[in-house]
Amino acid sequence: MPNIERLRGVLTPVITPFDDALLPDAGRLVDQCRWLLSQDVGLAVFGTNSEANSMSVGEKIDLLDALVDAGLDTSRMMPGTGCCALTDSLRLTRHAVSLGCAGVLMLPPFYYKDVSDDGLYRSYAEIIERTGDAALQIYLYHIPPIANVGLSLDLIERLVRAYPHNIAGIKDSSGDWNNTAAMLERGWDDFRVFAGSESFLLRVMQGGGAGCISATANVNPAAISRLWNSWNEPTATRQQQDLDGIRAIVQEYPMIPALKAIVASFRDDRCWRTVRPPLVNLPDDAAARLMEQLGEKGFDMPGLARQ
Amino acid sequence: MPNIERLRGVLTPVITPFDDALLPDAGRLVDQCRWLLSQDVGLAVFGTNSEANSMSVGEKIDLLDALVDAGLDTSRMMPGTGCCALTDSLRLTRHAVSLGCAGVLMLPPFYYKDVSDDGLYRSYAEIIERTGDAALQIYLYHIPPIANVGLSLDLIERLVRAYPHNIAGIKDSSGDWNNTAAMLERGWDDFRVFAGSESFLLRVMQGGGAGCISATANVNPAAISRLWNSWNEPTATRQQQDLDGIRAIVQEYPMIPALKAIVASFRDDRCWRTVRPPLVNLPDDAAARLMEQLGEKGFDMPGLARQ
Repeated sequence: MPNIERLRGVLTPVITPFDDALLPDAGRLVDQCRWLLSQDVGLAVFGTNSEANSMSVGEKIDLLDALVDAGLDTSRMMPGTGCCALTDSLRLTRHAVSLGCAGVLMLPPFYYKDVSDDGLYRSYAEIIERTGDAALQIYLYHIPPIANVGLSLDLIERLVRAYPHNIAGIKDSSGDWNNTAAMLERGWDDFRVFAGSESFLLRVMQGGGAGCISATANVNPAAISRLWNSWNEPTATRQQQDLDGIRAIVQEYPMIPALKAIVASFRDDRCWRTVRPPLVNLPDDAAARLMEQLGEKGFDMPGLARQ
Repeated sequence: MPNIERLRGVLTPVITPFDDALLPDAGRLVDQCRWLLSQDVGLAVFGTNSEANSMSVGEKIDLLDALVDAGLDTSRMMPGTGCCALTDSLRLTRHAVSLGCAGVLMLPPFYYKDVSDDGLYRSYAEIIERTGDAALQIYLYHIPPIANVGLSLDLIERLVRAYPHNIAGIKDSSGDWNNTAAMLERGWDDFRVFAGSESFLLRVMQGGGAGCISATANVNPAAISRLWNSWNEPTATRQQQDLDGIRAIVQEYPMIPALKAIVASFRDDRCWRTVRPPLVNLPDDAAARLMEQLGEKGFDMPGLARQ
């Protein structure tokens, strides 16, 4: 087997810029990803907060190609590749592996509800078998509040045992710390547990986890990354509280439109405000209030406006 | 505006045959669709029970092309074209319109939950505006138990008023008769209300509805169609009870694998048993029990084995 370094640290589901015609804007995405890497945050492009499922597979392949063509580091990339359709997931996963992405973040098929563990196992197994590449490193994506289809501990264990070289870890966006803790306790060999947000970053690191994959790392990457690097130091609890304070403000608004409004403001580029349906842009007055609240906390996105 | 005849009657979300490699089998689908038309049932291909969201847009386009190339009647076709991604829905919808399909059945984007009516309105509006073809006849697809994203009466009214020539009707799979009744009572001009199953067929016809789009019409088309044709006759209540009896048996099993097992049995073609992940095939013993239960009711699929 190839010796593949599994991922750890802080990653973010990079928000996806759309132009006035609602088409993905590769140039702006490259800029944003380059800035995120400069802040020591990895690229979980095509996550929930990337509006990944609002884009076609072809659009996602084009964006991923643009990132790689721009010379961004594939060893920091974990694109989301899980779609409803087996053939879509397979196509996007294969492409990510062919580009050398360090991992993929894979939702289960999420249209049918109350599906069996056998069916979900088969979904992942088919993709692994058909990709047929030891370089495929799957990070499972457990996000029952949105997908409404979750991954049980038994299912994960079954996958880890059947495909120890391909099942690399998980992003736990259940919001349930007990679930994250239960996975950490299982102690699967080199299985990387990522918290679904920085709210659990200190706890997941104390429990032996790998880091977090967080929406708010789109706008607050340096501070989140700092905690990851110093979680064992005396300042950690205070850092966690500060992160929680920023997150609490953002969470008063719809997350994706709010993140985009913040980037649009710091970049002075209104185009970043645009979301695809079924989401709606943050209204101007809400955006102004959000920026005011963040300003009161001394919030900044260093280096962004100066690019 | 072109004078487009809107759909009515009984349609079925045609189950999709997959080969041993789990790829869609166009030949078998054409056979099945031809038989369904011979039983007076229209083709709502790519519905929930078609495993539509388990297929890529490209696979669906190829299947639709195969049906049209085989000479099947596009005036009886209402393919499902609603995907999570705006660009996917748009591509498939445009293709269906270009082929002359009488209508399309359109799910809302279903990944994000708790989205606003404004966002859902925008989803449909973008597709209508970008398709830009008066021949586009959208039947909305309301199936909150599975999509977990529903269409409110206010949203429907807003769409009907904004796009009276494009919003043609709805399939109500809420399972809530009060919701269906409320739509019938609104009396929108030539708005076609389809019940989501034959369980409500008699009631929807008595209330001025258009018919039903039912999973079990895959296997029991003639009897369901007979009730649609004679709902105003004295035998209607008895017919409804008989339909309910057959449906109750099928519903003891997972619906899609059960429908496929029934067709596989009557066609003596095991290939029909295959479902794509995340679903799982009906086990042999369950299939045998299902066929036995149906046999006790004298259930038949006339003409199928003789094709």
